[in-house]
Formats: sequence, C-alpha cells, structure tokens
Amino acid sequence: MPLELHISLANLHNNLRFFRQITKNSAELSAVVKSNAYGLGITKIVPEMERFGVRSFFTATISEAVKVRSCSRKSEIFTLNGFDFLNAKTYKKFKITPVINNILEAQKFIDAFDQTHEVAIQLNTGMNRLGLNKQALFENLDLIKKLPMNLILSHLACADDISSDENINQRNLFNELCQVLPKVRQSFSASHGALLGTEFHFDMIRPGVGLYGGIKNSGLKGVIQIKVPVLQSFIINENMQVGYNFTYKATQKMTVATLAMGYADGLPRILSNNGKLFYGNIPCPIIGRVSMDLVTVDISNLPEIPQHLCVFSPEYEVEDFAKDCKTISHEVLVNFGERINRVFSG
Amino acid sequence: MPLELHISLANLHNNLRFFRQITKNSAELSAVVKSNAYGLGITKIVPEMERFGVRSFFTATISEAVKVRSCSRKSEIFTLNGFDFLNAKTYKKFKITPVINNILEAQKFIDAFDQTHEVAIQLNTGMNRLGLNKQALFENLDLIKKLPMNLILSHLACADDISSDENINQRNLFNELCQVLPKVRQSFSASHGALLGTEFHFDMIRPGVGLYGGIKNSGLKGVIQIKVPVLQSFIINENMQVGYNFTYKATQKMTVATLAMGYADGLPRILSNNGKLFYGNIPCPIIGRVSMDLVTVDISNLPEIPQHLCVFSPEYEVEDFAKDCKTISHEVLVNFGERINRVFSG
Repeated sequence: MPLELHISLANLHNNLRFFRQITKNSAELSAVVKSNAYGLGITKIVPEMERFGVRSFFTATISEAVKVRSCSRKSEIFTLNGFDFLNAKTYKKFKITPVINNILEAQKFIDAFDQTHEVAIQLNTGMNRLGLNKQALFENLDLIKKLPMNLILSHLACADDISSDENINQRNLFNELCQVLPKVRQSFSASHGALLGTEFHFDMIRPGVGLYGGIKNSGLKGVIQIKVPVLQSFIINENMQVGYNFTYKATQKMTVATLAMGYADGLPRILSNNGKLFYGNIPCPIIGRVSMDLVTVDISNLPEIPQHLCVFSPEYEVEDFAKDCKTISHEVLVNFGERINRVFSG
Repeated sequence: MPLELHISLANLHNNLRFFRQITKNSAELSAVVKSNAYGLGITKIVPEMERFGVRSFFTATISEAVKVRSCSRKSEIFTLNGFDFLNAKTYKKFKITPVINNILEAQKFIDAFDQTHEVAIQLNTGMNRLGLNKQALFENLDLIKKLPMNLILSHLACADDISSDENINQRNLFNELCQVLPKVRQSFSASHGALLGTEFHFDMIRPGVGLYGGIKNSGLKGVIQIKVPVLQSFIINENMQVGYNFTYKATQKMTVATLAMGYADGLPRILSNNGKLFYGNIPCPIIGRVSMDLVTVDISNLPEIPQHLCVFSPEYEVEDFAKDCKTISHEVLVNFGERINRVFSG
C-alpha cells in the first residue's frame, strides 16, 4: 500500500457544524483554506464546504485564490496577504476580493478598478504584522472611504490564550476604528478567537486550523489519519545500531520495522529517537534518526508484523504530535508532503 | 513580485562536474532525485542532468520514478524504497528498476517478472534501515542469485563524519558480501560518502544533497536563492509588540517589514526571533513568531525599504540556514513549499 493521508469528510462536517453552532446563527461561517486547505487539498475541501453552506473563503495568495475559483464558481474569495497589484487583472478575471493592508495597496486599487469590484480592508489592532494601524487610517480616511469595501477585518495575536488581556485590548481598538468606517461586515476571529465567545464573532468568523482537526476541544473531531506502510522488518541484537550517525543502540534484542515516511513527507527530523507511530493504541517508538523517506520504529511489543502503522491514535491527535515536534498544529498540517496520497471518505 | 526560488543551472552543472572529477573517471556519476529532486523540481532537473551526461537516477518511490520517466525516455531509474510489488506492472510499463531490499521482495520479483527485467539489490551493511543483512543474504543465496541484478548497493550511516571508523567497517562488510554475488556494478556512496575518497566510490556514486547546494565545500556551489517579497513596512515604537503571542517587544523605535513567506513555504517556525533574511550581505533579524504565510523582520539598518529580501547570502548558505533550524540541509531543501515559484536560470 502507498503512504496515505485519510481525510474524514464526516468529521470535517462535524467541525463546520460546531463553529456554526457556537456563533448562535448571528455570524457568518467562512473558512480559511490557505496553504492548500492546510495541506488537505483545496479542490476537494472547498466544494465540500460549499455543500455545507460556506460562501466565503480566505487564502493567503492570489494563486491560491485562483485555485479556489477553479472549483467554486460562486463563492467570495479573499486574499489575506493583501492586494498583489501587479496581478490586478487576475482579481478582475476571477472575481477575487483583495484584502487591502496598507495605503499603497488602497491607492493602487483605486487606480486599477472602478467602484464595482469590492475589497476588504484589514486593520492592524496590535499584532503589527499586516493591516492599517490607527494613525495610517486616520491620516488617510478620505482615501480609505473611497474603497468599495464589503468587509473589515483584523486578527488576534493571543487568541489561543484565553486569559490574555491583549484579546480585549485588540477588540476595543477594532471597535474604535470600525466607528469611522462604513457600516459593512466586520470579521475579527479565526478558530481560537471564535472559541473565546460570541463577543469576538462580529459578523463573520473565519476558522482554519480548528476545522482540520488541529485543536483539541470536546466539540471538535480529528479529521486526518496517516497510514504508513511497513517496508521491511527485522531483528536486531543488543548493541546493534540504527540509522544515520548511529544515534540509537539497542539495549536488548528487538524487532524493528522500517516504514515509508520521512521528513520529506512531514514526519519531522526532530522526532528522531523521540516520536512514535501507532498500531491502534499501541505506541511504537521511533528509534534512530528520521530519514528523508524512511523511519525506523521498535515493534517488539506488537502481536504481529503490521502492514502499516498510523501517525495518530484516538489519544494522540494532531496537537499532541505537534507538541512532540515542538511546534503547533498548523505547521504540522501544512508540512504533510505532496508524496502522500490524499484519500477522502464520507 | 511573487515568492520565488531561483535555481542556478550553471551552479548545478558545476556541482555535477565536481562529483564527476572526484571520481577520476573510474566511477559512473548517477544522481538522487527523490522528493522532487530535493524540492527543485524533477521535470526540469532530470533533463538538465541528462544533458550533462547523467544516465541513472534514484528515487524513493515508484510514483516519483514514473515522474522521472515522464521527462527522461532512456535513463535507468531505481526506486530506493524497494520493490512495491502491488505495482509490478508499473515497473514493467515504465521500465523502472526496483531496488530489492529483502527476501519477500526478491521472491515477489521472481514471481512477477521474467529474466529480462533487471533489478538492483541493496545490502544492509550496518545502518539497519533497509536491505539484506549478511544472514538473510547467506541463507537465501540461491534465491538472490536468481535475480537478474545489474547493481548492488549499500548506504553509509556516518558518511558526514570523516573520522568515523564505521565507514571502514561498513565498507569492509560491503566488500565481503559482494564476494558471493555476481560481478555487477557496485554503488556505495551518496554525496558525503563520495567526499570520503575514491576508495568509497566503487562503480557508481549517487550524490543528492551535494548537487543541490546543501554541502559547504570549496568545490561545490550554492544552487538556490529565495527572494521574498516585502508586503508592507512600518515604524513601531518602543514597547510595541510583534506577531503571535507577542513574543517580541521593541526596545526602541524601529522599522519593520512584513514579507510573504511563512512556515507553509519552508521558513520553519523555529526561526521565530532567531533567524534572519538578507539584503545583500546585511542581515535583517526575524522578530516575533514566523506565521504560516508571513514573517516580520527588523529592517532598521537598511538604506532603503527593499522590494524583497533573500533567504541566503554569499556567507549564509543552505547549511548555515539548516543549523539555525537545528536540522540538516536535506530537510531544509525538501521543505520549501509548492507555493514558491521555481525560476531556473542558465
């Protein structure tokens, strides 16, 4: 069998339903599908979300937006990384809505478009990454008001920390800045922000990682599983060594399996002698260095030589895997490589 | 401008020439092109290498091998991850040579093929990852000798450590095992092994990472550069914070640029508050967390607001970048994402 990433569309639907329910029907549910829908595959995920009723999608870049348009004729598509004005015609041709992040982009948009092509604007409420800050907004209010905007958005820096005062501070500033702008839809929260409560929802929430099983929460379900084929198994004796630079030495006789997944597939090298794969609920420790295309694990505890092992288990989800990789779910999801076959199930 | 990965074919040629020269014309120069030619792109790299005279290519998987065949009609193509016997017809159809790693694969090959389709076999000389070990080989010598083999190979575990005795131990075992096998081509070394000296070259070397600029060596040149577009720049004052979880706080007034590359593109999150981008030779420190699609850097020291910054500099190559990421060049190269436009120059 090939290396496979299995995606449960039923659990994706569960997660969409969860986010719709927590809005209490007072906010639109949009979806972030940048980085190829967090590695799951835009062309399958976007139509599935549309069937569920999602009407607005967020990408990072214009080329991703064009890909979304290729599988979604009617939806609104926003490019979070701004207005790539050298590609102005592409926005027009594919009916893509740029997110204006600064004054230069605003001016270029006005120069390039008539008033029929709408835009979103992003406000910088403290994260200092993208968007118009208070000063830039107030100094250029006449220009900004010329934009045919249909959405105002901002982004929380500390949404995953429910105790952070910064969330309140950013929200207060967002409210203050929206006062001087046209009364159009307002969007403030991605997945973690949406979980902070309805007072963070405004008119539209835009979850990403939570939809794809990257957040542990009683209402959200895991969406992906990776099945890793066993290529070979063998016995090694005490003192035999395994993998690059012989970083593992057996302390006793053991059974080792070599599997067809490596760091090129998103099993990071930091899991060398540290991570594990699963046979059901039974963990099989990674021994030695993770290679580019291969990983070796200790399967001495298993009742049989398996055909494949799994990356996740019911008790070991994307967020747990991310912790072992010393990162967050988002980086884990987008790193699962092109070589892995995506397999969708209902 | 879009995010671009520039690939110098002239420097790729330089590196091919380097490996050909160190063999003193006594060994064939093949090339490892797994993981989409280490992220550079199989369909462009393989024909380029063929023009240089490379006749044999190594992939990890059968699907990669089919991709190589799509752009190379005549070359030999080997699948290092073994013989995927459920796909036996694919090997036949596309004239792909499996590397037999174990007895099961050997038996399946004999069952599936007549004697006209050749194979390679891999010997496990101590790395304990893939291949036939001494015991398996001797116990099944009759079976193995039935294989119409055209290449015997093995792989070094510690080739990047020139002082390691393990290199000699593995080579001695390789020589010993080859004694009992047909007199066909023998291949033992990838890039680092080839650098150990001609006594490690046997009949064919098979460099990978060294071809693509991943090894610092006076004879090898950097092959890639990444140009990262600046989306926005702005001034922040003392005590203002930047990025997710506000992990950066300015100690003075400074100029910040936000650029369109994030961990989805292979700028790992571990570079948060740690890595740098370059304006020529001038480093611009990454401040705050690297996001999925964006990174913020301090550009206070620059003479102008740049249109783009670079990931590498003449003094900061792939291997230096990898060290800052606490990994090796290989993982860095294969992680540069699909969203980056590949741009080839002569």
